[in-house]
Amino acid sequence: MSTTTTDTTTSTTTTDTTATGTAPAHTTAAGLDQLNPPTRLLMGPGPINADPRVTRAIASALTGQFDPWMTDTMNETMALYRSVFNTTNEQTFLVDGTSRAAIEAALVSLVAPGQKVLIAVMGRFGLLLKEICERVGATVITIERPWGTVFTASEIEEALRIHRPVLFATVQGDTATTMNQPLEGLGQLCHRYGALCYVDVTASIAGNTLLVDDWELDVVSAGLQKCLGGPSGSAPITISERAREVIEGRRHLEAGITDGSAGVGERIRSNYLDLAMLMDYWGPMRLNHHTESGPMLYAARECARLIDAEGIAQTVERHRLNGAAMAAGLQGLGLELFGDQHYRMNNVIGVKIPDGVPGDDLRAALLTDFAVEIGTSFGPLTGVVWRVGVMGYNARRDAVLTTLAALEAELHRFGHATTGSGVEAAMAYYDQSKTNEEQPA
Amino acid sequence: MSTTTTDTTTSTTTTDTTATGTAPAHTTAAGLDQLNPPTRLLMGPGPINADPRVTRAIASALTGQFDPWMTDTMNETMALYRSVFNTTNEQTFLVDGTSRAAIEAALVSLVAPGQKVLIAVMGRFGLLLKEICERVGATVITIERPWGTVFTASEIEEALRIHRPVLFATVQGDTATTMNQPLEGLGQLCHRYGALCYVDVTASIAGNTLLVDDWELDVVSAGLQKCLGGPSGSAPITISERAREVIEGRRHLEAGITDGSAGVGERIRSNYLDLAMLMDYWGPMRLNHHTESGPMLYAARECARLIDAEGIAQTVERHRLNGAAMAAGLQGLGLELFGDQHYRMNNVIGVKIPDGVPGDDLRAALLTDFAVEIGTSFGPLTGVVWRVGVMGYNARRDAVLTTLAALEAELHRFGHATTGSGVEAAMAYYDQSKTNEEQPA
Repeated sequence: MSTTTTDTTTSTTTTDTTATGTAPAHTTAAGLDQLNPPTRLLMGPGPINADPRVTRAIASALTGQFDPWMTDTMNETMALYRSVFNTTNEQTFLVDGTSRAAIEAALVSLVAPGQKVLIAVMGRFGLLLKEICERVGATVITIERPWGTVFTASEIEEALRIHRPVLFATVQGDTATTMNQPLEGLGQLCHRYGALCYVDVTASIAGNTLLVDDWELDVVSAGLQKCLGGPSGSAPITISERAREVIEGRRHLEAGITDGSAGVGERIRSNYLDLAMLMDYWGPMRLNHHTESGPMLYAARECARLIDAEGIAQTVERHRLNGAAMAAGLQGLGLELFGDQHYRMNNVIGVKIPDGVPGDDLRAALLTDFAVEIGTSFGPLTGVVWRVGVMGYNARRDAVLTTLAALEAELHRFGHATTGSGVEAAMAYYDQSKTNEEQPA
Repeated sequence: MSTTTTDTTTSTTTTDTTATGTAPAHTTAAGLDQLNPPTRLLMGPGPINADPRVTRAIASALTGQFDPWMTDTMNETMALYRSVFNTTNEQTFLVDGTSRAAIEAALVSLVAPGQKVLIAVMGRFGLLLKEICERVGATVITIERPWGTVFTASEIEEALRIHRPVLFATVQGDTATTMNQPLEGLGQLCHRYGALCYVDVTASIAGNTLLVDDWELDVVSAGLQKCLGGPSGSAPITISERAREVIEGRRHLEAGITDGSAGVGERIRSNYLDLAMLMDYWGPMRLNHHTESGPMLYAARECARLIDAEGIAQTVERHRLNGAAMAAGLQGLGLELFGDQHYRMNNVIGVKIPDGVPGDDLRAALLTDFAVEIGTSFGPLTGVVWRVGVMGYNARRDAVLTTLAALEAELHRFGHATTGSGVEAAMAYYDQSKTNEEQPA
């Protein structure tokens, strides 16, 4: 089981196990070396290779959590994410965990037990929203679409009209299906029926247009590990004034740092993921809550800083171009793409595994022979579809072409006759593209 | 409010805001520079300066989350923390968040709504356990001690006998009070009365003796940002077989990656912090849950690897020696220590702010003049006590002496007449210490 278990039976040193005494002797465990990760080109649905500039930022020195420099850096990070989200929401900050932490923070803070939530499910992450809502005690109603399709506005409107939920929840991009749900006008629609609108954009942000204010989305959550170009472990979130009021309506301060006064409304069922408390921590009150992770704050700030310098619209366009080149290349190999391509996310492509090709074996060979990772799938798509990501730092011409060359070689090795060259098809797409000259060298 | 808000009114580029169209033009925000944190010597109650070797490890390259190298690294990290916790518990892994995430994971997973929890409160973090238990729907009973003292075993036993909770919960070190609750025999005591025993050791681990198996502690949670020598953002946890059975009794798989079969027992109220799901993610099933943060995994592994190489008992002894030298130095300045010193944690010292000295102003001057940070306090100790930490990488002779020299200078500057030299008193302590020769150069 463990290779480093302390074996006190073989210790030759006298031990003193009283609580206030000397620590017991330690039998040296099998010494492990420094980390030495293999080189990988991560072209799956995430995580991807972090931008080297993010990796350098993450290793910056730490300060105290209320050091003036630290709180300034937190404020800068809030401002940068307003830019990425296309919002003026004051309440724009990080949840200290992976993207799923922010999803749960949103749902547990917005929905009190017994309240009705309408969830549009078009893939795995809709199912995740459903199960989190069930766990927080909501009354959950779902509308569902087959994997590989999206909802029309009228389908959503009809459900809002019938069910009158306090919250409508969905995802913009469902990484499990590669689909990109149109969101324009969705917030307005929800508000017409008295619902708040929550959307997770982890899979789609910075790879696809997202206009939080224009679309009146009330709470939007994300993660760094896809098109934002960072590692997993920090989850940006933005909260409209309308949603802030709902959350403030359940605000309870923590005993031990305040007088523990009662607060208002039904207490949020989580402390760690309580958005009212997180607003007090990130806001001018700076009420102590968790200890914000320095490295993950640094990563989040650098991801947004690089996008801000590139321009968020240009970042989206870079994903569109390179994602389209990858799709052209996959089709050039004679492979069939999965799902309604009109509504595909720019940054991830589902491709059907050809008959007779063992999908996982080929993926393993790609990793072994070329150090290239592409993705498997979940649920009904397991064994049916590979997912190829073109995201963040890897939304680059050389990453696209290398992946296609490697895939072509492995398809041949596994006995599948491709109908053409993936690399040539992608190159032709780049050549045709009017925006080709905008690409980095 | 925001300095980087997109101002679409001044945009000169045509915008297309349809969901499937081109992203809108981006008005360049005020360009922010690279991170450039100030130099700090962090001698407060945490976070502290991460060990430089941890900082380097954290910047290692990422791989896919189910890459064989990644899962091997996760397994190595589990083994290393068994060593740090002095346990053979198979279920020893990381929660992807700060220490508070692991506290909530333990409580929400162990305690179903309506079940009775007994909490021993001796400071702020006991109050935190209480409020988290309330939020997860437990029936909460507390016993309390004044800040600066600890519980006797008989006080705990009497409460267990009267209340018969399903869970007893406390902290080993309460960083708010500097106290170190004796835990020897506590698990056995709890088990005699039919309770599981949960302890948070974030403030004390690696600075004070902790014998999870010998003391029969069922669930123990920690954080990297104190004596483990890392940054905040990853929370090691260990789970006994007895506790694992309780958690497995509430195991529900996630829809979308499985057949969504019903599961057993009352569903755990959190998805992100569901220890049954985390066990499946870290265990041989490798069921997808969150995407483990690569950098924080790397940090956690390196923290434990360095301690494993030093020997956990030697790490504790290093904290004892340098903490005692700091305490001797503070007393040498004529300052009065806070709390029952017999039960003080090795790694954090509460010191009463002298009459007439403005505590926060002096702390700010220490930061400005010497780049040294010491801590303020919470609740009843606010304005009464400073907290000085000697933790992790900073549990070193030069860090102790530098802090004392800087504090002495600032006390003089604020008009307080010290009764002697803090540096000389600490040096005398080091000289007297029989283990002096064990210190790093």
